[in-house]
Amino acid sequence: MSAGRLIAVGVGPGDPELMTLKAIRALALADVVAHFGKAGNGSNARATAAAHLKPGVVELPLAYPVTTEIARDQPAYREAICAFYDGAAAAIAALLDAGRTVAVLAEGDPLFFGSYMHLHVRLAPRYRCEVIAGVTGMSGCWSAAETPIAQGDDVFTVLSGLLPESELVRRLGEADAAVIMKVGRHLPKVRRALGMANRLDRAIYVERGTMADALVMPLADKRDDGAPYFAVVLVPGWETRP
Amino acid sequence: MSAGRLIAVGVGPGDPELMTLKAIRALALADVVAHFGKAGNGSNARATAAAHLKPGVVELPLAYPVTTEIARDQPAYREAICAFYDGAAAAIAALLDAGRTVAVLAEGDPLFFGSYMHLHVRLAPRYRCEVIAGVTGMSGCWSAAETPIAQGDDVFTVLSGLLPESELVRRLGEADAAVIMKVGRHLPKVRRALGMANRLDRAIYVERGTMADALVMPLADKRDDGAPYFAVVLVPGWETRP
Repeated sequence: MSAGRLIAVGVGPGDPELMTLKAIRALALADVVAHFGKAGNGSNARATAAAHLKPGVVELPLAYPVTTEIARDQPAYREAICAFYDGAAAAIAALLDAGRTVAVLAEGDPLFFGSYMHLHVRLAPRYRCEVIAGVTGMSGCWSAAETPIAQGDDVFTVLSGLLPESELVRRLGEADAAVIMKVGRHLPKVRRALGMANRLDRAIYVERGTMADALVMPLADKRDDGAPYFAVVLVPGWETRP
Repeated sequence: MSAGRLIAVGVGPGDPELMTLKAIRALALADVVAHFGKAGNGSNARATAAAHLKPGVVELPLAYPVTTEIARDQPAYREAICAFYDGAAAAIAALLDAGRTVAVLAEGDPLFFGSYMHLHVRLAPRYRCEVIAGVTGMSGCWSAAETPIAQGDDVFTVLSGLLPESELVRRLGEADAAVIMKVGRHLPKVRRALGMANRLDRAIYVERGTMADALVMPLADKRDDGAPYFAVVLVPGWETRP
């Protein structure tokens, strides 16, 4: 084991006020702060945490080589993304070997659908590490929408908008409550699936959940098919509220 | 609308360091802090937030009239719990009518399987309210266990340990990743269901997720059947990690 230390810092869904004390304290002691982002776009997680980075702290930006340019089921995508995570892990390992404390920023919660997980599986077996839980993007969305999502013995399911339509219909029919993530260009399919599963009437569409310009509306009222990649649809459960 | 204001404050999974800045600021401006708990036991949420309550702030403890003494499918349970939430909402409404800012503490996230939701549906239509998202108990658990839970297009499902065994088997077979909550005395059933669904080998048992005395172990290594009500079992997905 090295003297270095890896800290995964969940920064929450985007509102800097939804950062935890623990996340902020980790940033105060980190020697290096790493963050993922699309080349040229900067990192959303870094923007959330910006006020808490130490002046002059060393930053390690990790720019995805591909995002949506290559379909994810193509071998070329897998190869490029694997090489990227291997390289990022190697760069961080070198810093840890030199005794540095490295904080990796993660949007939402580090171990729930986040890029940090790819570093974790590569580094945690060899280095001392700590994971600081964060408020998930979906919690940010249903809080912004003031929508109780699940209660009691509700079965709650998180679905990707990339799933085939028939799969969405079937799974929406089985869940008491659901969140559909990565809606983006799949919105027409998601809308059809909700209709077929008789869940469209209560579904809520949310863009930029915890940003100042959040958009929250019943999905049934949304007339167009445009949606950003990170838009979500909430399907609240708890139909038997006392 | 009244001048009063209702704020639901998610305090996170138990580690006071996992409170958000927004939660702490809300407690600094609240006139009254309400918290749920079992009579005689005090409130877990209050214990988490204790360091951030203003000296001398008015507290409104809301003690559940029943927890597990009556089965939840009995009319007597529903009647008692409904009357309790009606009374709690009325007490808070009176404070809001008097212009007070009332913070209601919620363990984890206020709108995800929490008692606050019962107040929200009673009060939000009539009063100005705000919901401050919190780190969920399950995020606290998989972070303590350092277990990446779901990635990519994984279907992630939250199940109650109270579900019938056949239902657990079926739903575990359908989910890529799952969390089973409220394990408690249902542990033997949960263990059997995981075995039947061929998911026992990767399942992780967690007690007191983000407390100093957290217990994390492979469920397959747990020999006894004792588990507290809030124990959870994690079933990680992401089997195709690159």
